[in-house]
Amino acid sequence: MDQEHSNRLTTIQQQVKNQNLDALIISDKASIDYYTGVIFEPMERFWLLIIQPEKGPQIIANKLFVFDELAEIDVTWVDDNYTIAEAFANLADFPATNAPLRIGVDKLWRADQLLALAKTYNQTTFEVGSDLVDAQRAIKTAEEQEKMRKASDINDRAMARLIEEVLPLGLDELAAVDKLARIYDEEGADAGFSFEPIIAYGPNGADPHHESDHTLPKRGDSIVIDIGCKHEEYCSDMTRTVYYGEPSAEAKRVYDIVLKANLRGIDAVKVGESLANVDAAARDYITAQGYGDQFTHRLGHFIGREVHEKGDVSKANTDTIKDGNIFSIEPGIYLTGNTAVRIEDLVIAHDDGTENLNQFTKDMIIIQPK
Amino acid sequence: MDQEHSNRLTTIQQQVKNQNLDALIISDKASIDYYTGVIFEPMERFWLLIIQPEKGPQIIANKLFVFDELAEIDVTWVDDNYTIAEAFANLADFPATNAPLRIGVDKLWRADQLLALAKTYNQTTFEVGSDLVDAQRAIKTAEEQEKMRKASDINDRAMARLIEEVLPLGLDELAAVDKLARIYDEEGADAGFSFEPIIAYGPNGADPHHESDHTLPKRGDSIVIDIGCKHEEYCSDMTRTVYYGEPSAEAKRVYDIVLKANLRGIDAVKVGESLANVDAAARDYITAQGYGDQFTHRLGHFIGREVHEKGDVSKANTDTIKDGNIFSIEPGIYLTGNTAVRIEDLVIAHDDGTENLNQFTKDMIIIQPK
Repeated sequence: MDQEHSNRLTTIQQQVKNQNLDALIISDKASIDYYTGVIFEPMERFWLLIIQPEKGPQIIANKLFVFDELAEIDVTWVDDNYTIAEAFANLADFPATNAPLRIGVDKLWRADQLLALAKTYNQTTFEVGSDLVDAQRAIKTAEEQEKMRKASDINDRAMARLIEEVLPLGLDELAAVDKLARIYDEEGADAGFSFEPIIAYGPNGADPHHESDHTLPKRGDSIVIDIGCKHEEYCSDMTRTVYYGEPSAEAKRVYDIVLKANLRGIDAVKVGESLANVDAAARDYITAQGYGDQFTHRLGHFIGREVHEKGDVSKANTDTIKDGNIFSIEPGIYLTGNTAVRIEDLVIAHDDGTENLNQFTKDMIIIQPK
Repeated sequence: MDQEHSNRLTTIQQQVKNQNLDALIISDKASIDYYTGVIFEPMERFWLLIIQPEKGPQIIANKLFVFDELAEIDVTWVDDNYTIAEAFANLADFPATNAPLRIGVDKLWRADQLLALAKTYNQTTFEVGSDLVDAQRAIKTAEEQEKMRKASDINDRAMARLIEEVLPLGLDELAAVDKLARIYDEEGADAGFSFEPIIAYGPNGADPHHESDHTLPKRGDSIVIDIGCKHEEYCSDMTRTVYYGEPSAEAKRVYDIVLKANLRGIDAVKVGESLANVDAAARDYITAQGYGDQFTHRLGHFIGREVHEKGDVSKANTDTIKDGNIFSIEPGIYLTGNTAVRIEDLVIAHDDGTENLNQFTKDMIIIQPK
């Protein structure tokens, strides 16, 4: 285990102690990766990291999951026939089933494992404990910030090439997505996207769950381009909206409103201030311009190894911004059946100011169809 | 809503009534798709299907998730700021929070939603209720079986082309996976794989969590090929093991053992018999040949819209086989650092016999390197 992972484990163990938890059960594979450096898809098989306040990290793993990185960790091996209660019964130094414990669990933990364990540990209070993990993951180290910068650099270059080289061809949405995959590859991204790309023409952009299909662009269409790649396991995520030929007057108007909302949102990012304030800074402006009902989602989300991490920029989240937080600022206006605009940047909050990870221009771009 | 989905909903509602549940909460997006025909990735946003015994189906959805297929369903719309308790408070005709209820939940439901709802409904017993859903999904209709046949037909053809056209080239594993993606596309599969393909050379095949990398084949290597595609949303999944040049005597011996175990497993598939018996039929033979410890996993898993569905072919599962069940039979022997064999077919259990969905030969194939 390298120093970075070891430090992370020391920190979470201290947190578990501070919170007076008797144990924390971490099941999210991205979080286990964060602490151990092991990332894979266990599907329905056991793969849990357990943190007790006075003990080194423990893992419950199916015996198929042997990794060099786990050499220094106490692993309890189980096979396909084990129940969760049997697995915990085999865990070294774990308290007795009739002890009155407080156990924190992963917000994403599967209900069948939780309910079965709660039946056995029937004097125990189970609560969500992964906020401790998420709070740690939400503050990116210098090394993580550098990986996020590089992922967004690639994304900036990919956006430029997509708009210059691909979109003027008038391909259907899926064909444009295919080209984007090649561009990411050429620009040095990890294999795959950080999420399924959205390249949505005209009314498709105003449909919040539209998946790219064989739609062709029509003159005057907005093109919502919401794309991201990974670099060394860290995600980028940026949205720009461009036009396929001259847009309508209303499209221009909403573009201008969304752009100003994006800038107001970024301007409101200040360490120590509330995330809800940031949402309000963008939302209030859009509402004042008469499009509040057409901005249908939160302003942004935290991001890192996963494209959506715990933490959002919304009215409901009054948590304060911390040095090292990275999140998106992505206001949008969606005119159903007509046109859409979303403009999204990733920002890092620093004590001495806000860093925008996306350099690609936010000036309106009108593509001249070939 | 079409007749097929409507019938499925009627059946699950009857099951909820029979089991005396006050409600069943379904959160698995594949299961919600099974009942509604709507498939997408909601990420952390609300997307739940609720079945009450005396009421039509209800959905709790983020207001972003508007779908035509939901027109006849009672949808409670929420936004990013809702808690789960607030969402349920808005659900029509849902019992009061202080009622002593029995609520079944999805085996995969996220712990944060479950724990928060359990805190509000503090007189309620929560239990895993998705067994009802899984039991229904495990019996494939004639239409579903036909889709499974077609997906496996494509997989048979792809396996043949991979072995004839690609593997003799001696490409690295990832390059061979790339070629497979093109073959699937040409053979008419849906975009994407049904799972990340395994093409593993020599010792890599004996490493159960090996992911394809830039390893090149060496003479005498086993090549474990575990691949699958989707066709109309239904999955195929087949494994063959071939050799890159002449294999060792031991490799030939274990190939023969695994092949016989595969045939014995398939032969033991009989409606009304236990799944554990099928596992034993293959496992006992491997054990008798001295390789019991090298067969490290269950014999098989159920499959359908998802590549791993609830239900496995293992010692622990004494459920009986039902007409319309589809599962894999995949014995393997893994000699760490050396060589591996796995041979996997999908079968449909019928009242009048077992249907093997995979026609590709299981005779030993020795590829002559170019």
